[in-house]
Amino acid sequence: MMHPQQASAMPVGKYVPFQDQISVELPDRTWPDQVMTAAPRWCAVDLRDGNQALIDPMDAERKLTMFQLLVRMGFKEIEVGFPSASQTDFDFCRQLIDGGHIPDDVTIQVLTQSRDHLVERTFDAIRGAKQAIIHFYNSTSVLQRRVVFGSDQDGIVDIALQAARLCRKLEETVPETDVYYEYSPESYTGTELDFAVRICNEVIDVIDPTPDHKMIINLPATVEMATPNVYADSIEWMTRHLDRRESIVVSLHPHNDRGEGVAAAELGYLAGADRIEGCLFGNGERTGNVDLVTLGMNLFSQGIDPQMDLTDMDEIRRTVEHCNQLPVHPRHPWGGDLVYTAFSGSHQDAIKKGFEDMERRAKAAGTSIDDIDWGVPYLPIDPHDIGRSYEAVVRVNSQSGKGGVSYLLKSEIGLDLPRRLQVEFSQVVQRKTDTDGGEVSASELWRVFSDEYLHGEGPAEPWGRITPVRSTLIGTENGGQDEIEAVVRDGGQEITLRGRGNGPIDAFTAALADIGIDVRVLDYAEHALSAGGDARAAAYVECAIGDRVLWGVGLHESIVKASMRAILSAVNRAERDAALEETSAG
Amino acid sequence: MMHPQQASAMPVGKYVPFQDQISVELPDRTWPDQVMTAAPRWCAVDLRDGNQALIDPMDAERKLTMFQLLVRMGFKEIEVGFPSASQTDFDFCRQLIDGGHIPDDVTIQVLTQSRDHLVERTFDAIRGAKQAIIHFYNSTSVLQRRVVFGSDQDGIVDIALQAARLCRKLEETVPETDVYYEYSPESYTGTELDFAVRICNEVIDVIDPTPDHKMIINLPATVEMATPNVYADSIEWMTRHLDRRESIVVSLHPHNDRGEGVAAAELGYLAGADRIEGCLFGNGERTGNVDLVTLGMNLFSQGIDPQMDLTDMDEIRRTVEHCNQLPVHPRHPWGGDLVYTAFSGSHQDAIKKGFEDMERRAKAAGTSIDDIDWGVPYLPIDPHDIGRSYEAVVRVNSQSGKGGVSYLLKSEIGLDLPRRLQVEFSQVVQRKTDTDGGEVSASELWRVFSDEYLHGEGPAEPWGRITPVRSTLIGTENGGQDEIEAVVRDGGQEITLRGRGNGPIDAFTAALADIGIDVRVLDYAEHALSAGGDARAAAYVECAIGDRVLWGVGLHESIVKASMRAILSAVNRAERDAALEETSAG
Repeated sequence: MMHPQQASAMPVGKYVPFQDQISVELPDRTWPDQVMTAAPRWCAVDLRDGNQALIDPMDAERKLTMFQLLVRMGFKEIEVGFPSASQTDFDFCRQLIDGGHIPDDVTIQVLTQSRDHLVERTFDAIRGAKQAIIHFYNSTSVLQRRVVFGSDQDGIVDIALQAARLCRKLEETVPETDVYYEYSPESYTGTELDFAVRICNEVIDVIDPTPDHKMIINLPATVEMATPNVYADSIEWMTRHLDRRESIVVSLHPHNDRGEGVAAAELGYLAGADRIEGCLFGNGERTGNVDLVTLGMNLFSQGIDPQMDLTDMDEIRRTVEHCNQLPVHPRHPWGGDLVYTAFSGSHQDAIKKGFEDMERRAKAAGTSIDDIDWGVPYLPIDPHDIGRSYEAVVRVNSQSGKGGVSYLLKSEIGLDLPRRLQVEFSQVVQRKTDTDGGEVSASELWRVFSDEYLHGEGPAEPWGRITPVRSTLIGTENGGQDEIEAVVRDGGQEITLRGRGNGPIDAFTAALADIGIDVRVLDYAEHALSAGGDARAAAYVECAIGDRVLWGVGLHESIVKASMRAILSAVNRAERDAALEETSAG
Repeated sequence: MMHPQQASAMPVGKYVPFQDQISVELPDRTWPDQVMTAAPRWCAVDLRDGNQALIDPMDAERKLTMFQLLVRMGFKEIEVGFPSASQTDFDFCRQLIDGGHIPDDVTIQVLTQSRDHLVERTFDAIRGAKQAIIHFYNSTSVLQRRVVFGSDQDGIVDIALQAARLCRKLEETVPETDVYYEYSPESYTGTELDFAVRICNEVIDVIDPTPDHKMIINLPATVEMATPNVYADSIEWMTRHLDRRESIVVSLHPHNDRGEGVAAAELGYLAGADRIEGCLFGNGERTGNVDLVTLGMNLFSQGIDPQMDLTDMDEIRRTVEHCNQLPVHPRHPWGGDLVYTAFSGSHQDAIKKGFEDMERRAKAAGTSIDDIDWGVPYLPIDPHDIGRSYEAVVRVNSQSGKGGVSYLLKSEIGLDLPRRLQVEFSQVVQRKTDTDGGEVSASELWRVFSDEYLHGEGPAEPWGRITPVRSTLIGTENGGQDEIEAVVRDGGQEITLRGRGNGPIDAFTAALADIGIDVRVLDYAEHALSAGGDARAAAYVECAIGDRVLWGVGLHESIVKASMRAILSAVNRAERDAALEETSAG
């Protein structure tokens, strides 16, 4: 017989179910019968909610990089900071405006608490912008009223109204700016609905929006407290009870404490909201804000234009990882390294048959597979549409557990390949096993790896256009640039390259540019080889060379020389592939 | 004026909206009015669906570690593999049964395709188990019927029924095993509901379950294709139309392609399902299976016993990361490093007031804060309940952008601290800034760091019970053990320690055990110091010492000596804190 689960020892008694805290009742809800047909208005809050949740908040360089990414992707509403709470945010606001970084069709948004001196400072921050959204908030939840403010409902309403009135008055101090407003009853999900609608309606009355000049009412799941259908019920209830519906934009701001932020956003949108605030790849306080990339891709996969450009997913991801200094997880929906990958044989087989069917159908219709309905098992979208290759879709692992390529390289050779290099190298191995068949031994794997990447440092014969001879690095203390002089053999001829840059890699790529080799380093990793007393370091670089992105690897006692060899490895591989393409084309 | 969003150039025309592929209509749905009141039956599929999606599938050691973790957490149904598709899985099944690793109240489950020779092999795999679930499946979706099987509905039903009949026949070959069945119409979310219910009902008829010996009907979101309310509608529709409802267990198996797996599981459970299959921290094909940890914690935070033990969240996480060789993201709900952390000043202030209110209420009630209703802003649960400390809740970052602790250490000193060490060290800095006030400069930060961790290698004075003098490491080639002889100064006295192990760290902790110091290394990282031509490596170790988990850091030209120093750093810090506690207790 099967045995039932047992009670755990976890202290469940101290938690009050959501429905015993806040009543949300809407038996005549209509949202579950809706479907999405168009994108909502987006607002990206990476530079505010995202930024304030980072271990290392962005500096000015990273902030501007993020802002420009968001603009490039097509976002028209961008929350750029909390200028009254942070000098850095204030300075960044000024930099954006005074430096002319804001395109005419982009509206910046700034957050402020509903306190007089903070509101005043906020107007100073936006002065000179063509248009701006002042986003003011105060906390309205039962819990925060009691433990933080010690105030009744009237007192909390007064805080919001005083800020609203002050805002309207301060407008005259920024005559060149078209000022819009957003009000958030913060901790909305812990607020009684009738109080939430009361405070919003009183604020609306003071701001006095019109259909031609709307205000935004933002209903944040500051903490995600219940299943997403409950949030949707509450949003539908609010949209029925908010005044002057034609003059307001109902906005959602879901967090992800229960892992349901995406669902909350989508069901809340079905429930009548107009606009969604979130962050790229779900950065933000604690578990993060709702992920705008996932929301956009979910629409896209249903044939709805997301009105954001996600065609170069990996470039977006790299930029976000650089700005946030946080990784995107390999299983992150739509953007993770592993999400278009099938390891299981039956999945791989079905995918292959799906591709064959696409080709058959395209041929029959006299068109290309880009012009027919997508339909491949286990692949909800065409990876090409976001800049991924088909190669990565079908991957080698070994269900026998011993042949795992990267496992063997790590355990036998001591090489700990970065994940995207694992993906790349598994293609190399697969081409080999498809040709030769049979199981690949560790020593054979090592030979394949050294032939492909090491060009003379492993058991395989050296090859490639450029080989290192010697180099001198002159480092400067205190933030100056490094200078490199590298002697290499190019073809058969010894030549000397010189370059400067921030560190040896930067200097070496500058030196290569002099002989017409354009290399941009996208990612970099290095570790000591721990196996067998080997004193060498392994360096891995992911490079953009021409229109290709590929990896190079170098081993050397000196970490500098290991890095240079890694770059040459990528360069030689790119040259070889270009030459092969020419041959097969000719 | 504000400017509207623009159309993107993304090729939306090739995707067909879900509602134009599959019709799910249930206007009289009842699930949105339900709330959860008890845990579902869980089935953990980490060893099957999770495992087959790994770059390096688990070896026998990692498989057993995962199995034992799942048992310890209280799971009673564990899918242990796909034995007919993989020799490793078959061998692991035999190891579990023949080695007596399966507790009497745990039921193993094995997956098989509905093909004769695979079903037969599957019975061989479970022979001798006390009870087992044979989980057979075939793909039923419109797309797979057309492109993979080239078969009509009748042909697909025949595949399932033939497997069901063969199963019933093969039962006699395993007389000592109580055999249960699970059937999955794989790719259920892409299957017409009337066909899904037809094939399930015909299978139920062959298996002939009873209320005392039920069978499981599993309805997988093999690919997540729509919003979770649509999945819930489909589940409620199925539960209304499945035969012999009292003899079947309706099971969910959500994947996470749209980032809504958790919501799909919870709404599907509200819609009448009995059981949920998933993986710890959401491992699994592509974007993963639904995360059992999140589902359990979501219940717990609502005062519902999850019937799984999550009290040592970080130990669970470490084990899962070891087995899967994939990280848990710092923002992963309930288990990530950053999810109970508030950086913003207003959040920190509200949290402090929440704790004060808890203490007041507990005092007034004459009890402890563990015995009153939880209510702290921005903290949906008490971090203590899952083994986290309050210390990590309020964190130092610098909204001014210059004081970011780890940012400074990285940019100025070249130290790239692992994330959990960043958390730990920020406490050290906070204690310092709370005492001294003002901004901490980079050089001061470096002094604080070297005083806390480096014990003689930086600008601060050395301290601590044990200091290294010299050491000899004798490494063995070909997988043998390393032997270390380390001379250290303990108190004032020079002593010689000897130990053996897999590598120098293992050998050194063995050597320390000889003088009564019990150190278990939980995590390890190392990098070369790149700043200013420094040839040293930095080693970081996270150690369990007594009942504490803490970090140590070592710097040295030799990566071996850097590691040993890191371990001694952790040991010295643990000894100091233990001494301080004694002093304050006395």
